[in-house]
Amino acid sequence: MSLDRREALAGLGLTAAAVAIAGPARAEGSVGIRHQVFFWLNRPGNAEDLAKLVSGLKTLSAVPQVRELHVGVPAGTEQRDVVDASFDVSELMLFDTLADQKAYQDHPAHLAFVKACSPLWRKVVVYDTVPA
Amino acid sequence: MSLDRREALAGLGLTAAAVAIAGPARAEGSVGIRHQVFFWLNRPGNAEDLAKLVSGLKTLSAVPQVRELHVGVPAGTEQRDVVDASFDVSELMLFDTLADQKAYQDHPAHLAFVKACSPLWRKVVVYDTVPA
Repeated sequence: MSLDRREALAGLGLTAAAVAIAGPARAEGSVGIRHQVFFWLNRPGNAEDLAKLVSGLKTLSAVPQVRELHVGVPAGTEQRDVVDASFDVSELMLFDTLADQKAYQDHPAHLAFVKACSPLWRKVVVYDTVPA
Repeated sequence: MSLDRREALAGLGLTAAAVAIAGPARAEGSVGIRHQVFFWLNRPGNAEDLAKLVSGLKTLSAVPQVRELHVGVPAGTEQRDVVDASFDVSELMLFDTLADQKAYQDHPAHLAFVKACSPLWRKVVVYDTVPA
């Protein structure tokens, strides 16, 4: 982005964040790791446990390396053999680099989340991907 | 966005698409379905099969209901008990609505992809989520 355009955008009162979204979305050398996690509760259908886990996951956006955080529940899509709708909660995060993903794993907010919420789940499956 | 700001952005040569990214990202009534799919090849490690499946998946961006498409392979993250790095290819799509997701399932480009590529895989697991 040229200095002129940057100044013009600043003049419009657009924040740096908004400019970053409209421009290249990630840092130089970014690989874009998608960290996709699925949780099965010890007490499936327990609304309180579900709410606790969802709230706990949402605290993870405080970790600076987390570029995006999407906390989800099963969608009511058509039941087909290949669709696994048995999980209770999902988490999708985007990291720039492997080092960022590792820093997240070791971040106090993540460790606190695991300590507080891991008694809620009986199974967790993680898929980490990079662009093909 | 005010008309003034819109005009000012137009004056900067920013496209409508760039402005849309900075503003609300999805249509009214959007629920944001994330369709997360993992494939295991019949011949894991076969570079040709992997390339075919990746190419096939990338054709799916032609389906108008597909808001985002990310085709991936396992990231080299730390091996932990909960991490499943056994899959060969992943696909992540974003849809606005359940109806859009259904329209995608029935779209000729999707059916052609399944016909051409399904002999390549031995297992597929789909997780569909909506925001919690």
